[in-house]
Amino acid sequence: MAPEVHSLGHVALETPDLDESLYFFCEAVGFEEVAREDGTVYLRAPDEFEHHSLSLTEADRAGVDHIGWQTADPESLAGFADYLDGEGIDVTWIEAGEELGQGEAIRFSTPSGHRMELFYEIEKPDAPPERRSKLRNKPYAETTTNPVAPRRIDHVQVWDDDALALAEWLCEHLGFRVQESYDEEDGSRWGTFVSANGVKIEAAVIQHEEAGAPPALNHVAYKVDSGDDLFAAADAMRERGIPTDGFGQHSISRGKFCYARDPVSDHTIEFNAGGYLVFDPAWEPIAWEETDLEDRQWVGRIAGGENVPYS
Amino acid sequence: MAPEVHSLGHVALETPDLDESLYFFCEAVGFEEVAREDGTVYLRAPDEFEHHSLSLTEADRAGVDHIGWQTADPESLAGFADYLDGEGIDVTWIEAGEELGQGEAIRFSTPSGHRMELFYEIEKPDAPPERRSKLRNKPYAETTTNPVAPRRIDHVQVWDDDALALAEWLCEHLGFRVQESYDEEDGSRWGTFVSANGVKIEAAVIQHEEAGAPPALNHVAYKVDSGDDLFAAADAMRERGIPTDGFGQHSISRGKFCYARDPVSDHTIEFNAGGYLVFDPAWEPIAWEETDLEDRQWVGRIAGGENVPYS
Amino acid sequence: MAPEVHSLGHVALETPDLDESLYFFCEAVGFEEVAREDGTVYLRAPDEFEHHSLSLTEADRAGVDHIGWQTADPESLAGFADYLDGEGIDVTWIEAGEELGQGEAIRFSTPSGHRMELFYEIEKPDAPPERRSKLRNKPYAETTTNPVAPRRIDHVQVWDDDALALAEWLCEHLGFRVQESYDEEDGSRWGTFVSANGVKIEAAVIQHEEAGAPPALNHVAYKVDSGDDLFAAADAMRERGIPTDGFGQHSISRGKFCYARDPVSDHTIEFNAGGYLVFDPAWEPIAWEETDLEDRQWVGRIAGGENVPYS
Amino acid sequence: MAPEVHSLGHVALETPDLDESLYFFCEAVGFEEVAREDGTVYLRAPDEFEHHSLSLTEADRAGVDHIGWQTADPESLAGFADYLDGEGIDVTWIEAGEELGQGEAIRFSTPSGHRMELFYEIEKPDAPPERRSKLRNKPYAETTTNPVAPRRIDHVQVWDDDALALAEWLCEHLGFRVQESYDEEDGSRWGTFVSANGVKIEAAVIQHEEAGAPPALNHVAYKVDSGDDLFAAADAMRERGIPTDGFGQHSISRGKFCYARDPVSDHTIEFNAGGYLVFDPAWEPIAWEETDLEDRQWVGRIAGGENVPYS
Repeated sequence: MAPEVHSLGHVALETPDLDESLYFFCEAVGFEEVAREDGTVYLRAPDEFEHHSLSLTEADRAGVDHIGWQTADPESLAGFADYLDGEGIDVTWIEAGEELGQGEAIRFSTPSGHRMELFYEIEKPDAPPERRSKLRNKPYAETTTNPVAPRRIDHVQVWDDDALALAEWLCEHLGFRVQESYDEEDGSRWGTFVSANGVKIEAAVIQHEEAGAPPALNHVAYKVDSGDDLFAAADAMRERGIPTDGFGQHSISRGKFCYARDPVSDHTIEFNAGGYLVFDPAWEPIAWEETDLEDRQWVGRIAGGENVPYS
Repeated sequence: MAPEVHSLGHVALETPDLDESLYFFCEAVGFEEVAREDGTVYLRAPDEFEHHSLSLTEADRAGVDHIGWQTADPESLAGFADYLDGEGIDVTWIEAGEELGQGEAIRFSTPSGHRMELFYEIEKPDAPPERRSKLRNKPYAETTTNPVAPRRIDHVQVWDDDALALAEWLCEHLGFRVQESYDEEDGSRWGTFVSANGVKIEAAVIQHEEAGAPPALNHVAYKVDSGDDLFAAADAMRERGIPTDGFGQHSISRGKFCYARDPVSDHTIEFNAGGYLVFDPAWEPIAWEETDLEDRQWVGRIAGGENVPYS
Repeated sequence: MAPEVHSLGHVALETPDLDESLYFFCEAVGFEEVAREDGTVYLRAPDEFEHHSLSLTEADRAGVDHIGWQTADPESLAGFADYLDGEGIDVTWIEAGEELGQGEAIRFSTPSGHRMELFYEIEKPDAPPERRSKLRNKPYAETTTNPVAPRRIDHVQVWDDDALALAEWLCEHLGFRVQESYDEEDGSRWGTFVSANGVKIEAAVIQHEEAGAPPALNHVAYKVDSGDDLFAAADAMRERGIPTDGFGQHSISRGKFCYARDPVSDHTIEFNAGGYLVFDPAWEPIAWEETDLEDRQWVGRIAGGENVPYS
Repeated sequence: MAPEVHSLGHVALETPDLDESLYFFCEAVGFEEVAREDGTVYLRAPDEFEHHSLSLTEADRAGVDHIGWQTADPESLAGFADYLDGEGIDVTWIEAGEELGQGEAIRFSTPSGHRMELFYEIEKPDAPPERRSKLRNKPYAETTTNPVAPRRIDHVQVWDDDALALAEWLCEHLGFRVQESYDEEDGSRWGTFVSANGVKIEAAVIQHEEAGAPPALNHVAYKVDSGDDLFAAADAMRERGIPTDGFGQHSISRGKFCYARDPVSDHTIEFNAGGYLVFDPAWEPIAWEETDLEDRQWVGRIAGGENVPYS
């Protein structure tokens, strides 16, 4: 049976100032701190059962360590290790527990230099008793500081100076499917929006115009419930002096957005609402052309935003 | 390769008065009429690309013809046909086009008598030009009569006098997985909430207390965007004199609900908002016990509701 | 110049257990504690600039001390004192500061026995610096425990065994105007919905079927932003085991509601969303008859609810 | 008794192409056409009982005829006529019915040249039977083309090259009160936000930097229910190719906004949600300074926007 990636699991980020970044991610944005070990803090959103969907490690400078994907079954780890090795990709095994709460895993870099991790096992720790919901299907009764805390991880946006090649590599080697794509007026590909699980876009792979630009992560998107929650998210950022880099609705994915950026690391969280889900085994990719609309944003605009390179 | 069910596709319903039922489904609730042939009208929700997720056929009395499930690939049809035949289940092949917009299919009844259909191919017709969205990833620009028209099919609720047996049959023979379950105080199973795609509950299988009660469908649920949309849906029903049978939030699934019932057929649509999605290949079913909460409804109540038997 | 009542100011409530009631009002519902003196705690909603809109005093049993109304100008206090005295109503002057944060006031009982207060001056203390909004037109940056904390006081619902007489008294003597009314099928008045400011209903005056029933307060309503906030309010109550007595939308006033009740005092807060505002100097009262609709509630239902008598 | 303005009533606009403008105001934005006579079309929002809150007259070019304010009582018309005449302001009486659905009125220009109308009587015609709500306190059951049709008129924004003088004139002569104000870093006044009824901002009076700029109207704002409705409003505009000039939230007034502009006349409607209401007879104006915040917009931005001069 062919090995299979099931869905986006987490991102492992590095920051030059762990305390400042924790202020951003926990006090401002609303993540839950689940565990802390060896200079790494493991975070999850209040609607996630899994041990973490984001980790922060203190480092010399801001960076990305890896993006983690969960496989469909335990056997897929060895399956992918064998397969990638056969393709000339250097694969490293990570012992269970090295990344806290997680079983064994493999790591490798795409030809573009984006480091990826595949894992299957992940703990699902209970919320602390005083925070636990009375609903068995909900981990936390309430968020802590920020009522519009992200609900669950949605997608990553990665940049590369040959983004199309990266997107094609993900499809060919990891079995991702294209959900949408966007071509510039000259026919060149600007972005390819791919999914492992086929239900939602999980990685936006965006063209960096500058040749030789390093492999980078632009933002990690988490779902919130509504457009009104985006206004509330913006409130929570503005009251704390956190910079926001855009507010509106994408045409691609139809997702509504509010971007918030950690001032010390430039790591960016997209609060994302709406969009659509795909329950179609024969989905035909939505192929946008620049001339379809005046603006890639259906409403509002994206202002700025910073890529953070892989470390 | 084992045959696989991918997700819930549609329900085929019968009504004693097609025009009156179309008033309910199209004018009041907000479905789009896609096609009409041989006394059957094919409907879809305005956010669905597929040809239909609900069909209505005039008949002597209200009834359910079948519930349709899409397979993961074309080969799964013959795979399931062989397998079910081997299990002693009577399988009928349906020619492509017999159900409009659809490829060939198989039909069979579960031991409980719930008639099911499996299909793979389904057309994705464009919306009429004047109704088409400028967004390539959205079929219709707007709904017609009802601004809170359902967005997409979410789940069915079926009743049986041995619901646990039916749920187990779906899991064992069609590969469904249990997402949640609910046991009465005496330990008996009240409901099992299963999914083909593993992302959301697709069938709620509920115990009918009366022995010998016929296999039945209680309602079909469609997604809307928010709790506010449920208030707007209730508005749309009340202004038209359409009966509603409950308003609130389930604890199971965390779905918020407003039920609306076609007066001439008792076929019921649940407007459903919120809830949660599962992106976890190792999901452990949520096992509710009656003593967990005072009420199965977290907020509000369900009042009445009518089962419609299979025809 | 005739004295004039400007708008609803506050309610002064008594509880047999101040700590338990503060858990309800502050930890669960989300009021801000502004001051505490002589056994009375002064609360306001996080969107109110005024010193308090609700006060709680420990007493032998739950009760209502008075409902406070702000006059249009300082002179209206003496104006009403003279006028009411001339009408044979016993008027008591309250010194400035006796009710904390407030200037001098007068108190009196309506013939039905509902004790009222009129005041003009009220302090507008800043929020603590660390809680203050960066927006000059918003007192608090965020709520504390409950993200759906009420925004501002909206109305009171009082009961009497001759409610029509009470409503007429309020109109004739205090200048209230009728915004809506509701008559039973036999022509008897069930409720009269009156306003001092003429923009929104400020007092619902409801008929108690039992002759001799004491003058009572059923609930105090506070505004929240949306129907989705009502679902969130219900969440906050359910997670804390706070009883709720209804969820839905009234036809009268069009207000959407979720009721929450303090278990130790039965004092009830209505979270209220939607409704409409009147900017019409010639508003003609909306006169409902029982036969207009099947149910006084447009959506959902009210379940239970407790009157708390004047002390 | 001093004459008194009660609240904002309507705006009378001129357009070079009535049919195109009606497409914008009725088909796109969602106004109800109430009546048409002598080249003028009278419109109201679906939650307004009054005959009209906006009128459109075909003219050589786009322009503003007047802004209409309702007085508190019929006597205030003569009261203001006498008073303004005494102040050297030229007052014209308009016969009842000259503006359809309306009683007699007076018109005059402020010293800045903004033509105003005062009226008291206005008809409140029923909605057509097939459109009428079953709720007695709601005119229309549903909107026609646009589900996010504005609910009711909220405020106007007028521009002048001496805006402070205009605001002060409105306060001194018509009894308006200042609710908020905004000063530039050099201490000069940018905007004064005034109200006749004292409950909400009804006129934003904005400084035009260019000396000699003609008196103008920038936009008319109508209330919608929520931030989500603003996204839906933007959808309705984008799908019809209607230009929008901004999306986000003001700091002043806390109003959330989406601007839509009639392409043939540049008349602009602000869909406005949220904000706050004042029920305080002693409200102290909120005095903003440019240095309080980085941007006058709390979230998002205003892009463009066009002033339309008085005709």
